[in-house]
Amino acid sequence: MEVVGDVEDLKLEFSVKALVKGMAKTAFNARRLGEALNILEKITIQCNLRVLTLAGAVVPAGLRGILCDVLARDLFDVVVTTGANVTHDLLMAFGGKHYRLKLIDVNEERLKMKGFCRIYDVAVRVQDFEVMEKGLRRILEQMEDRVYSTKEFLREVGLRLEDESSFVHTAALKNCSIIVPAFYDSILGVQVWSMTQTRKLMVLEALDLSYLVDLQFEAKKRGGKTGVLIVGGGAPKNFALQSALIANKPFDYAVQITIDPPYYGGLSGATLGEAVSWDKVFEKAEYCTVYCDFTIALPLLFSALLC
Amino acid sequence: MEVVGDVEDLKLEFSVKALVKGMAKTAFNARRLGEALNILEKITIQCNLRVLTLAGAVVPAGLRGILCDVLARDLFDVVVTTGANVTHDLLMAFGGKHYRLKLIDVNEERLKMKGFCRIYDVAVRVQDFEVMEKGLRRILEQMEDRVYSTKEFLREVGLRLEDESSFVHTAALKNCSIIVPAFYDSILGVQVWSMTQTRKLMVLEALDLSYLVDLQFEAKKRGGKTGVLIVGGGAPKNFALQSALIANKPFDYAVQITIDPPYYGGLSGATLGEAVSWDKVFEKAEYCTVYCDFTIALPLLFSALLC
Amino acid sequence: MEVVGDVEDLKLEFSVKALVKGMAKTAFNARRLGEALNILEKITIQCNLRVLTLAGAVVPAGLRGILCDVLARDLFDVVVTTGANVTHDLLMAFGGKHYRLKLIDVNEERLKMKGFCRIYDVAVRVQDFEVMEKGLRRILEQMEDRVYSTKEFLREVGLRLEDESSFVHTAALKNCSIIVPAFYDSILGVQVWSMTQTRKLMVLEALDLSYLVDLQFEAKKRGGKTGVLIVGGGAPKNFALQSALIANKPFDYAVQITIDPPYYGGLSGATLGEAVSWDKVFEKAEYCTVYCDFTIALPLLFSALLC
Amino acid sequence: MEVVGDVEDLKLEFSVKALVKGMAKTAFNARRLGEALNILEKITIQCNLRVLTLAGAVVPAGLRGILCDVLARDLFDVVVTTGANVTHDLLMAFGGKHYRLKLIDVNEERLKMKGFCRIYDVAVRVQDFEVMEKGLRRILEQMEDRVYSTKEFLREVGLRLEDESSFVHTAALKNCSIIVPAFYDSILGVQVWSMTQTRKLMVLEALDLSYLVDLQFEAKKRGGKTGVLIVGGGAPKNFALQSALIANKPFDYAVQITIDPPYYGGLSGATLGEAVSWDKVFEKAEYCTVYCDFTIALPLLFSALLC
Repeated sequence: MEVVGDVEDLKLEFSVKALVKGMAKTAFNARRLGEALNILEKITIQCNLRVLTLAGAVVPAGLRGILCDVLARDLFDVVVTTGANVTHDLLMAFGGKHYRLKLIDVNEERLKMKGFCRIYDVAVRVQDFEVMEKGLRRILEQMEDRVYSTKEFLREVGLRLEDESSFVHTAALKNCSIIVPAFYDSILGVQVWSMTQTRKLMVLEALDLSYLVDLQFEAKKRGGKTGVLIVGGGAPKNFALQSALIANKPFDYAVQITIDPPYYGGLSGATLGEAVSWDKVFEKAEYCTVYCDFTIALPLLFSALLC
Repeated sequence: MEVVGDVEDLKLEFSVKALVKGMAKTAFNARRLGEALNILEKITIQCNLRVLTLAGAVVPAGLRGILCDVLARDLFDVVVTTGANVTHDLLMAFGGKHYRLKLIDVNEERLKMKGFCRIYDVAVRVQDFEVMEKGLRRILEQMEDRVYSTKEFLREVGLRLEDESSFVHTAALKNCSIIVPAFYDSILGVQVWSMTQTRKLMVLEALDLSYLVDLQFEAKKRGGKTGVLIVGGGAPKNFALQSALIANKPFDYAVQITIDPPYYGGLSGATLGEAVSWDKVFEKAEYCTVYCDFTIALPLLFSALLC
Repeated sequence: MEVVGDVEDLKLEFSVKALVKGMAKTAFNARRLGEALNILEKITIQCNLRVLTLAGAVVPAGLRGILCDVLARDLFDVVVTTGANVTHDLLMAFGGKHYRLKLIDVNEERLKMKGFCRIYDVAVRVQDFEVMEKGLRRILEQMEDRVYSTKEFLREVGLRLEDESSFVHTAALKNCSIIVPAFYDSILGVQVWSMTQTRKLMVLEALDLSYLVDLQFEAKKRGGKTGVLIVGGGAPKNFALQSALIANKPFDYAVQITIDPPYYGGLSGATLGEAVSWDKVFEKAEYCTVYCDFTIALPLLFSALLC
Repeated sequence: MEVVGDVEDLKLEFSVKALVKGMAKTAFNARRLGEALNILEKITIQCNLRVLTLAGAVVPAGLRGILCDVLARDLFDVVVTTGANVTHDLLMAFGGKHYRLKLIDVNEERLKMKGFCRIYDVAVRVQDFEVMEKGLRRILEQMEDRVYSTKEFLREVGLRLEDESSFVHTAALKNCSIIVPAFYDSILGVQVWSMTQTRKLMVLEALDLSYLVDLQFEAKKRGGKTGVLIVGGGAPKNFALQSALIANKPFDYAVQITIDPPYYGGLSGATLGEAVSWDKVFEKAEYCTVYCDFTIALPLLFSALLC
């Protein structure tokens, strides 16, 4: 622990970038956010392998467009995410929507009767899942029977989507890989599973592990740097970090956005310092955790980075 | 919202059961804990299908023995958990240990140099993972090449473990199913993947989905009740709930232990009310969320239930 | 950071004491709770000055009886608390009650129309505050006009209450001092202020500061030890700690129960380590923070201590 | 609970205002932040009485300049805050500083030996408090012996400070009132107390209560609207809300920034809905709670409002 400089009084700013940059010399999570921006700049500019992990309802929360922009601008090589985010992206690609709920007099039964289900203050129509199912079925009919990694499977799907606002579609076009390490743990997985019970089409996450580890090995061989932006915890966080462990190529840069404290011992709250002890993050890495709702932190960071 | 009775002053108690029972008439999370105990009693006595989902470092935190007791006493039919908890159970079954760390002057690099990695205030020796790898290899050599569900795979492993304190072993003996919905997202999964690259042994979570959905269908057909105790969020929580959705048999009883608030929109913090809107929990179900570290709440609930 | 021993598997226990004791060798907040018990034993046995600070709705939550037991058993010399806890104690002493609310379909307006106000899942009748006001008025009429410390004022009030379940009454009988450092920031303070506008009766917290600092000085002079149990943050926590700073007698033992993380920079979440840098807690002190709802942690600790 | 519209995908933006405005149609805390901005605009434009409550280390965190800007632009009539924020403002006005700490290998004892004390990742020099004490003493010598409200006392002090960056000074010039409801619970209070033990200068918060209640009464008489921005909880939050209760003039607009969940029953986490049941917030009020570190939320809101 050492004194590294003065706290510098923050100024009101018109631009997101100037404001977040200024935060780096303040305190608490504003400082962390400012430092995260500085590290993210290095990840996107200096790294040979750039991984984004996404847990949490990023798409239902209205960040699908920002995600597309980020992938269209080539910021990341790999996105590791939940089946849920892919599910909700497909739901929208096939015409579905997300609705804003007012959280007064919450009555789940009434909501269900009206055909909605709820993600905190967002509602989805059950029938939109049915429309999505039909769309997905049409795509699956075009795909050959074989064993796919989730990455290969989602590329095949992404290329067939006709929605420029879909991040799965954008990723497919930009050759960014999407990995879903708990594939069958989502409505997407369930639909694929039920549509392929009489077929030999199979999705196996072990293949994604090979793929991601290979990317880390390559980066290592070339003496390159690797960086990761971790949003939330869950399987996406662990999957990205364990690949670094296996390849013996700990990340050189890491930013984590979470709201979970470390002292409950869970993965989402585990510090990047802990990850150093596991050789998942390099001991000389630049890393930083921001304790903030991702719906606030991500738009700030990406606006500062890209606008 | 209605007034349901007086807050009754809690009394100091010698017995865990009396204390937790008394809490049900107080407020905040003490009330929730007391109510959770009442619901858990109904789950274990009245339900035909009883599911326990475990995210979080239950085994490293020293709750392995309690988990064994709970399974030996036949409290649950299915445990859905992370690969990590199985990994750490096997690590101990092959002679490994977990160590208590003093969190003063945390230095990750020094810790790593000494051969330890860290889970908050718990340390594990890296070489214990190597010993576990050898043990697992011996077991895998005895297993035939085929496609396994995680449940089948872990039963085969569990039966071959020679450690009565292992929950995987105990579950195998008691015919309790262990499901790991993100199998390859763990050291266990990585080891199995690396050992079986030249074999036809494969682990596929889609089979567990079929299995769990079938159990729900059966309970439904028989007009039985189903109950779930959810510890933390992650894939385990979602996997158990989505099976109820698919089988169209929402849980009749549900208890959730978490420390995540609902307003960040994440799965771990999603209320059981939300689950009602998804038809994962029955609208007339008895359910309750306790906001408390599971290392405190679980020993209290299970001691009150079993002692 | 060093390895201090093995994680020892916790056992199911009938007795609260055995369970909490066992937790000290586990992990995360269970370990912290177990360590807190060990430190609390030392505070109550070895310390010459024992301070309890209480923020949070301890009385409305149903812990009034436990608080009385603790004071009746002479565990603390000084209680520093919010005006709210004293208010709700008096409300009950004059016949008022707290009610349990079911948090479904929360409608604040309807609740208000029915004459209730709400503290999360607890309701209070507005008219009970009016009854309390009359009772307090009768007591004030018996008190002479002068400047009181909050401690003196509350002793005068406590001695005149006719309710053995009142902690203000019990404290007065046992010669335990109750200090309210933000006296006018509560319904009690407002009532006293409105009843005494035409009188020379005045309550001044600065006198409590002198009093508490003097106690610390005495403990220092005698070479004695001091200990503090901090529940929540707010003015009570700060007031107790600043008195140690002024007296240049940092606490030798300290236990803190909070749910606030340190990284938001607030007082409630400030670690006891921080307090060491301020000379409020001794650098060789035994101290421990438990991240847990006090409605769960306090009954466990006091039951383990006293039953 | 009703569906109020679509979730609208957020766009990357150059300007803070556009970004925060866009968030109002998204989800989770981004939506809350966007709604907070909309309500804040109404508070600052439409309200006759505008109150800002500040708990938390606003000044040490580097937000002193923004606070000055906000007061210089006449956004609030009253600031209710902790003694700590005033203390740190004075410390800087007399030449003191705050320093940024790197939180690696935290060692409190070493830090203390070097003459620093710590507020999470911010350090203060102990000797700066001594310099502040001398400065305050000079000011106190110029002040007459009498009973002051905290508001009057701080105006006297503020007018005598020679630092345009001081928010206490700026408030004094702009005729904005600063109230500290737990005055003696701070280093400032302790210094005033120790300097005035032989004088008849006294600070009494009860006078502030009269003052604030009178302001509410006036607003009520004139049929005006009142609004409050609540940052953190503690005595500042309660003091502002209780004045509305006494004056029987519940706030018409309220925004709250906190990171505390409601289910622990504490004041900081108490919802504004609860405040409706207490008649502290009007049942038809527009109100909104944002769960976010204030170091991030405040600069965003004020930049969007003023740039």
